[in-house]
Amino acid sequence: MIKANNPDRKSWIPVSKDSDFPIQNIPFGIFKTHTTGPAVGSRIGNTVINLAEVANQGYFDGLKLPDKTVFQKSRLNEFIGLGKSVTNAVRDRIAELFDEKNTDAKNDKELISQALHDADDVEMLMPVEVGDYTDFYSSEEHARNVGTMFRDPDNALLPNWKHLPVGYHGRSSSIVVSGTNIHRPKGQTKPADSDQPVFGPCKLFDFELEMAFVTGKKTGLGESVTTGEAENHIFGLVLFNDLSARDIQKWEYQPLGPFLAKSFGSVISPWIVTLEAFEPFRTDGPQQKPEVMDYLKFQGKKSYDITLDVFLQPENSQEHRVCRSNFKYLYWNMAQQLAHQTVNGCNINVGDMYASGTISGPERESFGSMLEISWKGTNPLKLPNGEERKFIQDNDSIIMRGFAQNDKIRIGFGESRTKILPAK
Amino acid sequence: MIKANNPDRKSWIPVSKDSDFPIQNIPFGIFKTHTTGPAVGSRIGNTVINLAEVANQGYFDGLKLPDKTVFQKSRLNEFIGLGKSVTNAVRDRIAELFDEKNTDAKNDKELISQALHDADDVEMLMPVEVGDYTDFYSSEEHARNVGTMFRDPDNALLPNWKHLPVGYHGRSSSIVVSGTNIHRPKGQTKPADSDQPVFGPCKLFDFELEMAFVTGKKTGLGESVTTGEAENHIFGLVLFNDLSARDIQKWEYQPLGPFLAKSFGSVISPWIVTLEAFEPFRTDGPQQKPEVMDYLKFQGKKSYDITLDVFLQPENSQEHRVCRSNFKYLYWNMAQQLAHQTVNGCNINVGDMYASGTISGPERESFGSMLEISWKGTNPLKLPNGEERKFIQDNDSIIMRGFAQNDKIRIGFGESRTKILPAK
Repeated sequence: MIKANNPDRKSWIPVSKDSDFPIQNIPFGIFKTHTTGPAVGSRIGNTVINLAEVANQGYFDGLKLPDKTVFQKSRLNEFIGLGKSVTNAVRDRIAELFDEKNTDAKNDKELISQALHDADDVEMLMPVEVGDYTDFYSSEEHARNVGTMFRDPDNALLPNWKHLPVGYHGRSSSIVVSGTNIHRPKGQTKPADSDQPVFGPCKLFDFELEMAFVTGKKTGLGESVTTGEAENHIFGLVLFNDLSARDIQKWEYQPLGPFLAKSFGSVISPWIVTLEAFEPFRTDGPQQKPEVMDYLKFQGKKSYDITLDVFLQPENSQEHRVCRSNFKYLYWNMAQQLAHQTVNGCNINVGDMYASGTISGPERESFGSMLEISWKGTNPLKLPNGEERKFIQDNDSIIMRGFAQNDKIRIGFGESRTKILPAK
Repeated sequence: MIKANNPDRKSWIPVSKDSDFPIQNIPFGIFKTHTTGPAVGSRIGNTVINLAEVANQGYFDGLKLPDKTVFQKSRLNEFIGLGKSVTNAVRDRIAELFDEKNTDAKNDKELISQALHDADDVEMLMPVEVGDYTDFYSSEEHARNVGTMFRDPDNALLPNWKHLPVGYHGRSSSIVVSGTNIHRPKGQTKPADSDQPVFGPCKLFDFELEMAFVTGKKTGLGESVTTGEAENHIFGLVLFNDLSARDIQKWEYQPLGPFLAKSFGSVISPWIVTLEAFEPFRTDGPQQKPEVMDYLKFQGKKSYDITLDVFLQPENSQEHRVCRSNFKYLYWNMAQQLAHQTVNGCNINVGDMYASGTISGPERESFGSMLEISWKGTNPLKLPNGEERKFIQDNDSIIMRGFAQNDKIRIGFGESRTKILPAK
């Protein structure tokens, strides 16, 4: 078992029962404070740990770190690129350091004063420099809902869908960290009652509940990653809100796919939770029929039981849960996605991001987008404040949260939060 | 007029009459030699100029460079990011330095021995770290040919085509520099005579003759670039060979666009030729009807008269020109492409690459892909060595060249060259 995963370990840092960040999580992110510049951090409970300072104080001595400056960076790419043998060793060391039995550390006033910050006092930044970003389309329920709404209920899935994890390239530059607010985009749309397209603010603004994995090990051009090797290339996971302009998409997307409908902003949670932290939550995904091709076959449990929630918060109102879904609903798992991505020899880099596509479950309560929840606007969602929503309105905040939980521990992401501002 | 563009200037470095690199070009690239590491270079005739060494010897003194190390880099991003006021001043200074009237420089043995290399003795590397890569679809002739072959000759263009520059996000990681050979990709295809998809090497391997522009000035999320401002954001141009697996594309691309059919390799020319160098070759593009929306309107000549050639060279055979096209055929110009890319608030970065899409002209001789030249394989191309080609075969080399020429000067790219190796 991974040392850091010991479910019985407790920390001398206080952790509330419903925290996403027990000592078994130990995620990685980039933060800054009023007085310290960007640095690599981790988190236990409501405490952010400055790993550059932990390194300075010698607590990482003996680990195979090239030098301590790897934690004095504004992005995690270099740290992640050291490989799992190093990043897992750092997680194990952090677990030991903050273990309640470690009374030396617990009484180290220098450590406490220099390396620990209240989470409310730090600003979280983008955790990685994203090289390439792929968005898959791997939830059968989502693909069926969309196919039913826009094509043919009897042939909701296109012929290729069960043979390969459909995906497309997305825009990296506009992936931003939780807390970044996004203006409603403007663009071309073609109203149903018009012969000509018109220009203006998007009218069908939506979120998509997704997760994304971040790669931590590169490959060369011409190389492929097998499903068996894939998890060695996956560093960890974030929540991914793939904001979407449905009306812009409808007019622009033929024949080459979504473009401006997706590139105005995607909002991720700030902490990358390692794949290792989710080890206790492995589960089987949906059974795949027809049988997949050899390069997509895999051994063992490659899915994870992670509850995913979306909340909508209108201006001056309470947040209201509009969706509860689960990562395990995904038909195609991450190992298959990465094997498919690279089967043609496409090279991957450290810091690439691979999003799942909208993760919908079987019922309306688990649908991962307003498009599905309101069924193209035909069945508006009633909010507790008396308002209704077909799509997202200006000044609505969208909050995504996700966590895995068993009888001993809960491993979560914190949140991805964004407020939709009026068009500029 | 831009000083470096003086058409009457001659260099003390020999330049043959048909060279792409007279003293009016002064492109930028990254090179290394057996003895020197990667550095920023320029080129006159067959001579590569080490700009790090030129800077060391004080010839850039007085220019607003932050420090000389900007030339000691393995990518151009930092240099380009200094902005046009600096990069144009560097071009002007290089023009003065190598002007035949500059006898001091001509007799500077230290400069000659340390900064100048025969082009045959250097290896060209990727010029930029590509952040995001977009591939447009901006040639009407190409779009019409594809639409005629695969849909309906009477409705070859989709309804959106003349209203917006259709484009999609591509894979950055697999953009490589000329001289990099590419293995034929493997993947899923669905043969016409089969109910089920099969796995194996691509059978319909193609090139696409494109050009790409590289951005040199970033914007923030939520900002838009107007057509009037666009050229201030465009640093320069490269040839772009968008290798394509037609059979993989056909099976995978619905509904989200091309993915693995494009991500196994795209090959660019190594020298970025600045937009300024092409100033004498401005021309009007095709007339646009219907009238475009306001954000796509533009003033002045926004197209460039640049001849574009593709050569095919079978193993142990001579190269043979299979296409002569022209950049000016593009319906949508670069200013419109960048205005469209950012109209939704999508942010751009220094080093982004924006490819044109296949540039086809009106006749078969100017079609920019084998798909069009062989009309889906129905009209094979006859080669001088007696062979025929419907698509690209193993060990074929594809060479693209491009140049603009008037009665005084010729500004070109050198070449983009790749050999297609058998599937791994």
